[in-house]
Amino acid sequence: MRWLMVSKNTLIGNDNKKRTSDKQFISIRNKPLNSALRVFLKLNMNKCVIMPVLNQKLPNVRGYKIMKTRRSDRLVDMTRYLLERPRTLVSLTHFSEEYESAKSSISEDLTILKRTFQERGIGLLETIPGAAGGARFTPYMTQDDAKEFVASLVNAIDDETRVLPGGYVYLSDILGQPWFLQRIGRLIATQYLREPIDAVMTAATKGVPVAQAVAAQLNVPFVIVRNDTKVTEGPTMSVNYVTGQSQRLEKLELSRRSLPMGSRVLIVDDFMKAGGTIRGMASLVKEFEGQVVGAAVVAEGRVAHRVIDDYTSLIHVDTNKDDGIIHVAAGNYADEIYANFEESLENKVK
Amino acid sequence: MRWLMVSKNTLIGNDNKKRTSDKQFISIRNKPLNSALRVFLKLNMNKCVIMPVLNQKLPNVRGYKIMKTRRSDRLVDMTRYLLERPRTLVSLTHFSEEYESAKSSISEDLTILKRTFQERGIGLLETIPGAAGGARFTPYMTQDDAKEFVASLVNAIDDETRVLPGGYVYLSDILGQPWFLQRIGRLIATQYLREPIDAVMTAATKGVPVAQAVAAQLNVPFVIVRNDTKVTEGPTMSVNYVTGQSQRLEKLELSRRSLPMGSRVLIVDDFMKAGGTIRGMASLVKEFEGQVVGAAVVAEGRVAHRVIDDYTSLIHVDTNKDDGIIHVAAGNYADEIYANFEESLENKVK
Repeated sequence: MRWLMVSKNTLIGNDNKKRTSDKQFISIRNKPLNSALRVFLKLNMNKCVIMPVLNQKLPNVRGYKIMKTRRSDRLVDMTRYLLERPRTLVSLTHFSEEYESAKSSISEDLTILKRTFQERGIGLLETIPGAAGGARFTPYMTQDDAKEFVASLVNAIDDETRVLPGGYVYLSDILGQPWFLQRIGRLIATQYLREPIDAVMTAATKGVPVAQAVAAQLNVPFVIVRNDTKVTEGPTMSVNYVTGQSQRLEKLELSRRSLPMGSRVLIVDDFMKAGGTIRGMASLVKEFEGQVVGAAVVAEGRVAHRVIDDYTSLIHVDTNKDDGIIHVAAGNYADEIYANFEESLENKVK
Repeated sequence: MRWLMVSKNTLIGNDNKKRTSDKQFISIRNKPLNSALRVFLKLNMNKCVIMPVLNQKLPNVRGYKIMKTRRSDRLVDMTRYLLERPRTLVSLTHFSEEYESAKSSISEDLTILKRTFQERGIGLLETIPGAAGGARFTPYMTQDDAKEFVASLVNAIDDETRVLPGGYVYLSDILGQPWFLQRIGRLIATQYLREPIDAVMTAATKGVPVAQAVAAQLNVPFVIVRNDTKVTEGPTMSVNYVTGQSQRLEKLELSRRSLPMGSRVLIVDDFMKAGGTIRGMASLVKEFEGQVVGAAVVAEGRVAHRVIDDYTSLIHVDTNKDDGIIHVAAGNYADEIYANFEESLENKVK
């Protein structure tokens, strides 16, 4: 008795080197499943177990039986599958067919995943019962992890050589590191655990990595608003807005086809001073008949007057243009993200 | 006998609602571990099992014992941990301490992960033996999955309304979808399974999402080259280059502090016509005394003459400016990425 792995209608061999070096086995590798199976069954006197790697119809040949995927293998693959698809309802039927396993076994697997995800602060695994039921994974970051992460951000940015002309701060290295971006995305997404969001919006160019990171955690598209018209993207919708500090008139444009009308939009950016750009993006969302779900920035600078009230910031940066001194501290994230986090976790699905 | 979960030196309760609503249990939630444990042991007549969620020193109090993390929970969390850290060597000691489990058990877990990752085409899990040993996960995409994915890309882009002035193609919606980006990143990274890479480089602004997606799979920083000087990023290094088709002189700039000298760089972009921008980026890499490991683009257009020879493209787009006809097909990815894939998989670690 031996195992075969079946992939895309082809026998691809197993991972045991002794077995794959077997001549009989080699002779049927990469043949179409149907004929390979017949040869194999002949050679092995009708004793054979097939372990399907991918869900597919098996050929109508006598003498083999299907092996269920083991629980340990299911747990590993289900974890991978759900982590890759945040906020997506995956049906029990899908897993059941993928692993040739009973729905009751899949339900037990999901209980294990749910427990581990919760204990380790990875995210929420909701299991929806019934015929149309399944599981949905929503990643979050616990407040303890957030505290540690924001401290590491503060530590990385608290460096006076980062002060740039105009009171801006050099963040490009931080916002070019996948590790930081993944954490930033997860932390910002945590605030909207139960909120339906259709798209993430940002302003070119430095906000793009933040938008992409948040969108990956929410599993929704991100759209990039531009203030030059050089880039050709077809017909655009545009708004004029007044910058927060210098009171200049600027223009923001978004390709018409990139955002469906009536979308629920989360606005993000890397750095906010008075908030003029965010206010501009909010008015652009209105032009698309959409709704602003929230606004979040990695860093807020210190300004005398802000033109928006409702925003989330991970860190607060205070720069002094004259002597280049920088002071970095945690932003308002603890109040904005975690004030209702526990309640939100326990809520039913909206 | 009951379980407690311990996190960050604090008892945080377990996930069983009946237990957490227990008054005795509630009374010790959020107290420091040491005193909470004493109270708990008193209440429960010295019977207690502690399940540590995070690795930490437990207080010197009699009457409790530590519970090892179950295999099923370890498998779920190890999968998550390794997927979040591509190409990073994680020591056996780390897992062993994290789960309070013997290294021999961790090794068995890794064997299960390795088998499942291989069978399902998720990636390579290398286990390095010895005292300094551990496990390293390198994600890849199988050629079957790549074929299916590229076909879905071709299908999404083969639409004549995407043709933009100048022979460009509207890709922003595709390059704003986390799902496509994750797949694009994994496919491009597959070519460099065994190649050490220090950074991914791209040109602002449309290449940024591609660079971020590839960098996430390689777990290295990405840097953004700009051709305007409006954006302030401190001192820059710059090169002049001639565009491939129109033979205009352009400038490319990169902030000096964003790329260490002597880096091994992978150049990526969303769209390539003659390849002038990529050639410009390659000369910028040389200014940083670095080495170009490769160049990869999502889409290549049709041109009479290309100024670079060695590149990987996922799709090939042929547009006709006059009547807006578009013809989309697979690029050269199959030859470039999969010609040596099987050998590369079986190679030893470099």
